Amino acid sequence: MDFTPANPDFETRVRDSFARQAVMATLGARILGIAPGAVDLELAYRADLTQQHGYLHAGIVTTLLDSACGYAAFTLMPADATVLSVEFKTNLLAPAEGEKLVAHARVLKAGRTLTVCEARGVMLQGGREKAVAHMVATMMALHGKADR
Amino acid sequence: MDFTPANPDFETRVRDSFARQAVMATLGARILGIAPGAVDLELAYRADLTQQHGYLHAGIVTTLLDSACGYAAFTLMPADATVLSVEFKTNLLAPAEGEKLVAHARVLKAGRTLTVCEARGVMLQGGREKAVAHMVATMMALHGKADR
Amino acid sequence: MDFTPANPDFETRVRDSFARQAVMATLGARILGIAPGAVDLELAYRADLTQQHGYLHAGIVTTLLDSACGYAAFTLMPADATVLSVEFKTNLLAPAEGEKLVAHARVLKAGRTLTVCEARGVMLQGGREKAVAHMVATMMALHGKADR
Amino acid sequence: MDFTPANPDFETRVRDSFARQAVMATLGARILGIAPGAVDLELAYRADLTQQHGYLHAGIVTTLLDSACGYAAFTLMPADATVLSVEFKTNLLAPAEGEKLVAHARVLKAGRTLTVCEARGVMLQGGREKAVAHMVATMMALHGKADR
Repeated sequence: MDFTPANPDFETRVRDSFARQAVMATLGARILGIAPGAVDLELAYRADLTQQHGYLHAGIVTTLLDSACGYAAFTLMPADATVLSVEFKTNLLAPAEGEKLVAHARVLKAGRTLTVCEARGVMLQGGREKAVAHMVATMMALHGKADR
Repeated sequence: MDFTPANPDFETRVRDSFARQAVMATLGARILGIAPGAVDLELAYRADLTQQHGYLHAGIVTTLLDSACGYAAFTLMPADATVLSVEFKTNLLAPAEGEKLVAHARVLKAGRTLTVCEARGVMLQGGREKAVAHMVATMMALHGKADR
Repeated sequence: MDFTPANPDFETRVRDSFARQAVMATLGARILGIAPGAVDLELAYRADLTQQHGYLHAGIVTTLLDSACGYAAFTLMPADATVLSVEFKTNLLAPAEGEKLVAHARVLKAGRTLTVCEARGVMLQGGREKAVAHMVATMMALHGKADR
Repeated sequence: MDFTPANPDFETRVRDSFARQAVMATLGARILGIAPGAVDLELAYRADLTQQHGYLHAGIVTTLLDSACGYAAFTLMPADATVLSVEFKTNLLAPAEGEKLVAHARVLKAGRTLTVCEARGVMLQGGREKAVAHMVATMMALHGKADR
């Protein structure tokens, strides 16, 4: 799919908004890539983000996938809009063990109000990639509302 | 619904497992209540857990709801089983602003392998409660696997 | 929850719209009850609606739950709006066997644009009720669009 | 992804099971293609399967996507197993109008007990394809249970 961003400053807009998502810094997440309709984020494994078996908690995995989906949708929104999550489902495919979690999000369908995105969560384990989670999310554009 | 726990030590089992979920301490979450098929957790609002508008990030809300669902399911599992999240959907109902997030989880259907739970996420705002999120989750019992 | 309908004619509006959902007649579905924010529908078991084990197909169960959710949301919408499904998840709790499927839908959160509903699907089996499915759905109001 | 079927007779198994899903005949659905981990189904538009605006009902779209996902998972299951839907979420992307609905399902992750699949639903409209729905589903293998 080819998307034409409504706002040529989409990359700056995503970077600015990401920098204001305080939880991203708390988790140590960072941006890997931004393109129209697609955002990649990453998060290093940390023992203090785990569930009882020592894997990254499914909610933390979801946090990265949700932000990736939100910003993938945001790349296509006009300059006067902000983005909110309406809903998402995460399917957990394998334990989130390894060095790093990467979220690859892309827009499936962009609409004026609602945008549907999917994100794949993969863990890097000793040079190999393993799919650990899959999300499909609905994002909402709030027009006329600043992104802060 | 009335549930009979397969393991009379269900409360100790949940408390021990929760204590090993490192992310719960990282987020400052704590247990409010445990009963057969039902678990309540809470999390104080913290600015370092927010998205760009200053609300608790939907992924952090999801983290609390997921743990609440997992432990609600875990109360009904036998002593030799551990619990894993299969999938969950979170519907976001309102911005997560206020002093505290409470997750009320309960089992909708308990099976030998799969258990379906729902969790309501409410924010306490100046003495009032506001529904902010709703989750339905599928949890899986892994029999013969220690919960650590 | 107590809801005040925006349109006093909500019941007539639901009945008229239901009568135009051709698939409801095809499946033999009918309305059991309508109240502000809540709709109950039913469907008799039919062998021609089943999957390979002779249970009602999960998609047919979903069809009834989706219509029940849509109309529960519709009861609270203004007279100039129509309703569309944005997304729904169905969790299947037990095989849909028995004489009749009943869908009990209610609104969890009503908004101007989006409304979140849940529906329980129960089968009547020889006088007993058995929970077979659970849905949480997002419905959208399209303002200024006729419901036909 | 490359999948090796556990049962070389996977195609016959899917065709036999599909033929026993009575609702598929009722809806006029048929099989377009079967490969390891992937199944395509189609359904002609029929006015008696529509909602109030004359589009295919979201539950009917879901019925086709669910069967496609179930059979995609089934292609990878051993000869002594049957398949049941655990849960699915459908995101509706556009009104289901046109001549024909096609469901393209594929396995995202195959496990011994649980298999996660996705399905894209597209409508053919005057020679063009339009994405109308997207599903991610969890399917369960019941070992030692006949598929009937």
